[in-house]
Amino acid sequence: MIRSHEAGTLRREHAGQPVTLAGWVARRRDHGGVTFIDLRDASGTAQVVFREEDTAHDLRSEFCVRITGEVRIRPAGNENPELPTGDIEVAATEIEVLSEAAPLPFPIEGDVNVNEEIRLKYRYLDIRREAVANALRIRSRASFIVHDVLDGHGFVNIETPTLTRSTPEGARDFLVPVRLQPGRWYALPQSPQLFKQLLMVGGLERYYQIARCYRDEDFRADRQPEFTQIDIEMSFVDQADVLRVAEDLVARLWKDVAGYEIPRPIPHITYADAMARYGSDKPDLRFGLELTDMTAYFADTSFRVFQAPYVGAVVMPGGAAQTRKELDAWQDWAKARGARGLAYVLVQEDGTLGGPVAKNLSDTEKAGLAAATGAAPGDAVFFGAGKRHATQELLGAARLEIGRRRDLIDPSAWAFVWVVDAPVFEPVEDERGEQVGWTAVHHPFTAPKAAYADTFQDDPGSALADAYDIVCNGSEIGGGSLRIHRAEMQQRVFDVLGLSKEEAESQFGFLLEAFKFGPPPHGGIAFGWDRVVMLLAGESSIRDVIAFPKAASAYDPLTAAPTPITARQRAEAGIDADPFAED
Amino acid sequence: MIRSHEAGTLRREHAGQPVTLAGWVARRRDHGGVTFIDLRDASGTAQVVFREEDTAHDLRSEFCVRITGEVRIRPAGNENPELPTGDIEVAATEIEVLSEAAPLPFPIEGDVNVNEEIRLKYRYLDIRREAVANALRIRSRASFIVHDVLDGHGFVNIETPTLTRSTPEGARDFLVPVRLQPGRWYALPQSPQLFKQLLMVGGLERYYQIARCYRDEDFRADRQPEFTQIDIEMSFVDQADVLRVAEDLVARLWKDVAGYEIPRPIPHITYADAMARYGSDKPDLRFGLELTDMTAYFADTSFRVFQAPYVGAVVMPGGAAQTRKELDAWQDWAKARGARGLAYVLVQEDGTLGGPVAKNLSDTEKAGLAAATGAAPGDAVFFGAGKRHATQELLGAARLEIGRRRDLIDPSAWAFVWVVDAPVFEPVEDERGEQVGWTAVHHPFTAPKAAYADTFQDDPGSALADAYDIVCNGSEIGGGSLRIHRAEMQQRVFDVLGLSKEEAESQFGFLLEAFKFGPPPHGGIAFGWDRVVMLLAGESSIRDVIAFPKAASAYDPLTAAPTPITARQRAEAGIDADPFAED
Repeated sequence: MIRSHEAGTLRREHAGQPVTLAGWVARRRDHGGVTFIDLRDASGTAQVVFREEDTAHDLRSEFCVRITGEVRIRPAGNENPELPTGDIEVAATEIEVLSEAAPLPFPIEGDVNVNEEIRLKYRYLDIRREAVANALRIRSRASFIVHDVLDGHGFVNIETPTLTRSTPEGARDFLVPVRLQPGRWYALPQSPQLFKQLLMVGGLERYYQIARCYRDEDFRADRQPEFTQIDIEMSFVDQADVLRVAEDLVARLWKDVAGYEIPRPIPHITYADAMARYGSDKPDLRFGLELTDMTAYFADTSFRVFQAPYVGAVVMPGGAAQTRKELDAWQDWAKARGARGLAYVLVQEDGTLGGPVAKNLSDTEKAGLAAATGAAPGDAVFFGAGKRHATQELLGAARLEIGRRRDLIDPSAWAFVWVVDAPVFEPVEDERGEQVGWTAVHHPFTAPKAAYADTFQDDPGSALADAYDIVCNGSEIGGGSLRIHRAEMQQRVFDVLGLSKEEAESQFGFLLEAFKFGPPPHGGIAFGWDRVVMLLAGESSIRDVIAFPKAASAYDPLTAAPTPITARQRAEAGIDADPFAED
Repeated sequence: MIRSHEAGTLRREHAGQPVTLAGWVARRRDHGGVTFIDLRDASGTAQVVFREEDTAHDLRSEFCVRITGEVRIRPAGNENPELPTGDIEVAATEIEVLSEAAPLPFPIEGDVNVNEEIRLKYRYLDIRREAVANALRIRSRASFIVHDVLDGHGFVNIETPTLTRSTPEGARDFLVPVRLQPGRWYALPQSPQLFKQLLMVGGLERYYQIARCYRDEDFRADRQPEFTQIDIEMSFVDQADVLRVAEDLVARLWKDVAGYEIPRPIPHITYADAMARYGSDKPDLRFGLELTDMTAYFADTSFRVFQAPYVGAVVMPGGAAQTRKELDAWQDWAKARGARGLAYVLVQEDGTLGGPVAKNLSDTEKAGLAAATGAAPGDAVFFGAGKRHATQELLGAARLEIGRRRDLIDPSAWAFVWVVDAPVFEPVEDERGEQVGWTAVHHPFTAPKAAYADTFQDDPGSALADAYDIVCNGSEIGGGSLRIHRAEMQQRVFDVLGLSKEEAESQFGFLLEAFKFGPPPHGGIAFGWDRVVMLLAGESSIRDVIAFPKAASAYDPLTAAPTPITARQRAEAGIDADPFAED
C-alpha cells in the first residue's frame, strides 16, 4: 500500500508514530500560516496540520493526496469528541498531490441540494458521500449474510442463464440480437423461475441465487429495468419448510444489519383477512385502524350509495375537526385513485353525526354507527361501497393515508407478516368491468391447495393457492409458492387461464418436457433484494441502494445510455437479417 | 419436509427406526417376489426392499417416489462397503409415486454415451448424474470461499449494471433495444472494467463482484456468450498488494476445494522470460523442456533458414526414434499453425546428427549442437527461425505437444506462476506483416511501469506495464494491472493507440470525466471464474461447470434459443424506430 495507516483508524495510542496517509481533502481551514485539512479515506477522517510553505500546491476540495507526518495529541481544548480520531492530528512533513480535482458539481461534505439526475450523472462523486457509500456497504454486508445463511442450510448457489429464450408472449422481456445467428434473438429473463424449477427436476433439491433480473416495462417510480432477486427453490417441502428458511434469512438480516430481533414465528394472515381488515394484500401492521365491514349493517339501507355488494368503513381519529377544504381534498384523493369519491360521516363531540352522508341515513343507522365502526366523538368515518375487492383497496389506501396524516406510523418500528392462502386465479375484466377470463395471481405454476386440487377448474374464483408473500411495513419483500409438478394439473390450470397448448408449448415447452421425467414436489420464494436492502438501510428509494441506478424512462445520466446505434452495428448484430434465409 | 430422513445419511445406528424417504428410483432389481430399488436423493443412495404386492405401480427408472418403511441391518454378507449406506436397507411398507418418468434419452446411472448436445437438451437429467451435480456443488462452494476471503479482506461486494452504454467501437457487445426509448439501445458489458474504476474514483477503495459478463463473438471452443468473472479493484495499492489478495484467494480455493496447499509466494516470471524459456505468456510449468535461444549460436551460419532475427530450439526426449511418418506429421502440425514447417535434427545414439537439416550445418555447428540445446543421444531437436515472438510461440506450442506425446505432464500436479512485466503495447500488423500501429496488450487503462512513464510514447514497443497474469498449469486464470489515473498520461496512451479524442470520448467519456475529480491510484485483477472452477473440479470444459451452458454457435439446445421474433415484438421493442424522430 502507498500508505501506512488508514486515516479513520488513528487514535491516541498512535501519538509519536510516523504515518503515511492517502485520501481526499474533505475540508480545508486556514489559520494564519497554518492550514488544517480533514483527510478522508474509506475508513474515516483525520485532521492534518501543516505550514503553508510545506507545500507548493494550492490544495482544494477532493484533491487526492498522500501525506507523510507524525501523529500527535491535539492541544488541550482542541479535541473533537464527535470524531473517532478527534483526539489526534497528523503534523504533516510532506504532501504529494496524487491527482487534482476540478470544481465540484455538488459538495461531498454536508447536505446536497441538487436534483437526483445530477447526482446520478456524477454518481462517482455521490458515492464519496458517507450516506451513499454506507448504503452500498450495507448491501454488501446483507449479501454476505444471504450466502452465509443459505450455505448453512445446505443450499447450492447456482448461476442460471440471462441469455434465454424469447417468446412472443414475453411482452416485457428485453430482446438481444445474436451475431452468430443473424435474425435470431435471446431474451433477458424477468426471473430465473423456469431454470430454478429445472434445477429441482435435476435433483439439486436446494437452490439459491442472487440473481440479476430484467423487465422492459413502463418505468414506474422505484422500478429499474435491471433489478436483483434472492431466488430460492426447494424440493420435497411443505409450505412451512420454505417459510422457515425464509424467516431464518430475514431474521438474520434484520438482526445483523438493522439490529432488530424479529419476533418468531412471523404471524400469518390470510389474503382474505388482509383484504378485509386492512384493504391490502400487503398490510402495514405498524398501526391498527382496521376496516369495518358494514355490508350487513347497511343491508336494508335506503341510501342508494350503500346498496352495494360491499360497504366498508375506516375511522380517522380526530377527523371531525377537518376543514371543508380538507374534506374536499379527500374527494380529490379518491378520484385520483379512480373512485367516485369517499363518503364520510363526522362524529361530533356530542355524538351527533355531521357531513352530507348523515342526512341520508335512517335514525337507527345513525344511532349505531359510531359503535359499529369504532369511531369516537371527534372522529371522521370514511365509507366505501361497491365491488368488494376494489372497495377494500380504496379503504386500505385511505387507511394508509390517515396513518400518515395522523402520524400513526412509527418510522422506527418493524412489522412483518406472512400473507397466505391467496387465490390461484383472479378475474380479467374488460374496459366495462365485465369478466372475460382468468389470470394467475402469482404465476401459472403455483399449486392450488390440496382442498381445491381436484375441483379448481369448476370454480376458479374460489380456489386458494399454496402461495405466500412476506410483507414488511406494508411492502411486499418476497413471495413464492409450492409449484405444480403434475402435468395433468398443470394442463387444467392452463385451461382455466385460456392458454392453448401451442402457447404453453412456446412459453414453457422445455419445462413441460422436463416435467415428464419424475419432477419432485417443490416450491420456493424470491425476495426483491433492492427493496429489502432499501428497508435495511433505512432508505426511501431503491436507487439509494444501487451503485449505478437508471433514472426515469430507463435513462442512465452517467453514461447517457441507451444510445442510437450505427448502420454497421445493426448489420453486424444481424438485426435486420432474415432468420429463415438459407446460408 | 415430506420425508423424515435423507437417503444418503442412513447408517447402522438408524436400525429399527421408521423413516420416510423421497427421491428417485436409481436402479431396480427383482428377486422372486422381492424387489430392491436404489433410492437416490441429493444426499446419496439407500437400498429399499419391498414385496412386489406392496405397490400397484410398476416402478421404473427415475420415477420420483416417497417411501415409508423401517431401517434394518442388511443380512450378513449383503453389506456393500462401497456405499456409505451399505450396512442398512429400508424395508418399505408404503410406496407413493410422486411423479412418473417417461423413457430416458440417456441413463442417469453409469456411463453416458450420447453426444453433448443431447445432454444439454436434457440438462435437467444430466444434472441428476452425480459427476455433473458435483461440479455444480463445487462451483457453489468455491463462490462461497470467494465471498469469505474478500469479505475478510474488507472488500465491498457491489453489483454493477449490465444494461450499459453501447459504443460503435464495442464490436463484441451484445445490443439491447429499449422499449421506453424507441430506436435506442443498451449494450451488455464485456466486463465491469469502467464501473469498477468509477467505484475507485468514488472512494470505495476495495471492490469485488462475481460478475456476469457478455461477449458476442465467434464462438470459440470453450467460450460462452455469457461468462462469469471474479472482479476485484483496489485503491492506493502497489502491484504487490493486488497480488497478495489474489494469492490469498487462490490459495484458499485450492486448499479448501482441491485439497492442495499452493507454495507461497507464487513465483514470478517476466513476460520476456516466459516467452524466451517456454514460448508462451502462459507457460505450463508442470514440466521442464525449456527452449534454447540459438540466435547467437547460428549468428554466422551459412544455412539460409537460420539466418533469421531469432533462432530457437526445443528438445524432444527420445525423439530420434520417431518414424519418417511421425516426423512428417510434425511438419503438418506446424503448417496447421501457420508456420512453414519445423526444422529438426536427430541426435543418434552415437552422437552423430541425422535429419535433413544436419547436412546444411557446418562441422562446428554440428559438433556443439547437442550440448548447446541440452539434447542427449536419442533425442530430437526442433528448431524455429524467424521473427522472435511468433517463432517463440511456435516452439512453445511444440514444447506442449512434446510434453503431451511424451507424457511429461503430471495431470495431478499444480503449477502456478505470475507472469509480470508484459509490454504495454504490441504492434498491429497488416496482412503483409507490416506494422501499421499499436494496440494495448491488456487494455488502454493499464499503467506503464514508472521507468517508462515519461517516455513510453517515444518507444512504445519497449515499454513494460504494471500488469500481471496468474497462470495455472498453462491456463491464464486471471489478469490485471495498475491503472492510469492521470489524464495527461492517459492521453499519451490514447495517442500511441491512435485513438482520437472523439473516439476516446465516445467509448470512455464518462470515465475520463470522472478522472477530473481526484481519482486515486488504483489497480485490480479479474479471474475467469468458469475456468478457475473447471480446474478446481478437475473438468476439461467450462461447460461442465455451468448449469445451463450454450452449445456451439451460441445455440441453447435446452430452450432452442435464440429464436426469430414476431413483427409485433419488433414494433414493441422499438427496433426499427428512428431515435431522432420528434415525439
